[in-house]
Amino acid sequence: MTELKITFLGTGSARPTPRRGVASVYVQLGGDAVQFDCGEGSQMQILRAGVRASRLVAMAITHFHGDHVNGLPGALGTMGLNGYEDGLTLIGPAGIDRYLAVLADLQILRPAFPVRVVENDEAVLLDTGAFTITGVRLRHRLPTHGYVLREHDLPGRFDLERARALGIPPGPKYGQLQRGESVTLDSGVVITPDQVLGPARPGRSVAYISDTRPSDRVVEAVHGVDVLIHEATYLHSLAPHARERGHSTVREAAEIARAAGVKRLFLTHISSKHPNNKELLAEATPIFEATEVAEDLMAVDVPLPA
Amino acid sequence: MTELKITFLGTGSARPTPRRGVASVYVQLGGDAVQFDCGEGSQMQILRAGVRASRLVAMAITHFHGDHVNGLPGALGTMGLNGYEDGLTLIGPAGIDRYLAVLADLQILRPAFPVRVVENDEAVLLDTGAFTITGVRLRHRLPTHGYVLREHDLPGRFDLERARALGIPPGPKYGQLQRGESVTLDSGVVITPDQVLGPARPGRSVAYISDTRPSDRVVEAVHGVDVLIHEATYLHSLAPHARERGHSTVREAAEIARAAGVKRLFLTHISSKHPNNKELLAEATPIFEATEVAEDLMAVDVPLPA
Repeated sequence: MTELKITFLGTGSARPTPRRGVASVYVQLGGDAVQFDCGEGSQMQILRAGVRASRLVAMAITHFHGDHVNGLPGALGTMGLNGYEDGLTLIGPAGIDRYLAVLADLQILRPAFPVRVVENDEAVLLDTGAFTITGVRLRHRLPTHGYVLREHDLPGRFDLERARALGIPPGPKYGQLQRGESVTLDSGVVITPDQVLGPARPGRSVAYISDTRPSDRVVEAVHGVDVLIHEATYLHSLAPHARERGHSTVREAAEIARAAGVKRLFLTHISSKHPNNKELLAEATPIFEATEVAEDLMAVDVPLPA
Repeated sequence: MTELKITFLGTGSARPTPRRGVASVYVQLGGDAVQFDCGEGSQMQILRAGVRASRLVAMAITHFHGDHVNGLPGALGTMGLNGYEDGLTLIGPAGIDRYLAVLADLQILRPAFPVRVVENDEAVLLDTGAFTITGVRLRHRLPTHGYVLREHDLPGRFDLERARALGIPPGPKYGQLQRGESVTLDSGVVITPDQVLGPARPGRSVAYISDTRPSDRVVEAVHGVDVLIHEATYLHSLAPHARERGHSTVREAAEIARAAGVKRLFLTHISSKHPNNKELLAEATPIFEATEVAEDLMAVDVPLPA
């Protein structure tokens, strides 16, 4: 079974504290990984978490506030030093070309591997063959996008008993049928995949939504996802502050999760004003029960439904 | 007595490891501090070390390799969020204006306080009234400068017995004499400072030299300093590699220290290829006895000579 695992690298807002680094999440699906945001220090968090930058096929930067992007030059530099050779898809806000060009010109960063730049947009930004990343426009103080990672639908389960009953000999024909190909038995009988496969199973999905005011657009884009990672910078007692700074409160994040019918909600981008997770959960869970507060280096497995 | 204290924030080369962060040193003289280089994560190291970014009057960036500068946007951003209001002198390579301009334009960093940019040069780059910072051109793969911080000369010691013998009443006149002013006694006798003060005492000095091939220019610039912090990326067994990459070996750093007649040498910018300090010291101390290997968060007091 392909593993889908989320590792939070930084779960704080604005500036790093000893407890919470700045924004970054690493999501691994099978052998490939994607990093959403790249706050300062995320490359050190990757070392501490024991996950591998070498698996990254994409980095996606939501917006150009320093706490979401300042780790990028160092991360790409280190990947190059460590012999990363694959092409990396770098998704980010308009202007990211110019940022990379100045870094290269000053010699701060000259990536030692191909970088394909894709500008943030409400579209499929990457399709690896195993999953897609789609952008969703957010409501922050400057152009900002969140992302939805969707695993491609998986083939239906192979019905072994049925295959035996149909007289298909165990071996390569099983694999052909699982891959959606018809096979011909020695008897001349043709077996089509639908005879032995159950219905296709929907792939899993993870949404990363930071930074933003609550948004109907988000509710629509993240509808039914397995995991919603949503910023919740402040408790609702600081709602005016959240509004002014273009952020969501814990209550608002929970309301988004409920409205979108997601399976699990992880709160992130937590202000250092709120050190007590119990307070955060007390505000969120009456609205959306399956809420957790992300912590740096927390790892979350997202299993396929039984 | 004014305290002079060096705190190593990052002592590794190229990329951070769990043991050694990338280049950064914090030097505090009295209430003011200077940071030499600003590798990624140095703002977190400042938190861990328990020193204060609010004391910084200057940051000085030796050159535009990522491991020396990638922490700068985050460090300045956080200082602003924490209410830093003083003017900061930002010393760095030609092009640093353009770097700041792009960061500001993209909204990655808009410092919330005045920043005065000074380009690296072989000149006095800052004079705070208590100390100067002077640049020295290094030999690396791109334009690079090291720095010498020199405390201003201190007034000579006040000779209390002599003052009493001259009939100077204890009180404000002592202070005037210590500040170099003459005073007139009630008797009409004029006392000049040289009558009660010993010879002026030379201020202390700390040199930060990274990254570079060994250089006669450095020997001259750091002559007799109290503390020489010199890069020593590799053991001499990797001398060809050091030459190719524009770095110094441990042996070469020790030779510079000896030739310059400095009081103490701290090796920094240590490659992760060399985890064993004993090996580094075994190479350095036969050439220059007063050698130490810098470690992250190591603090060093530089006392005035007795």
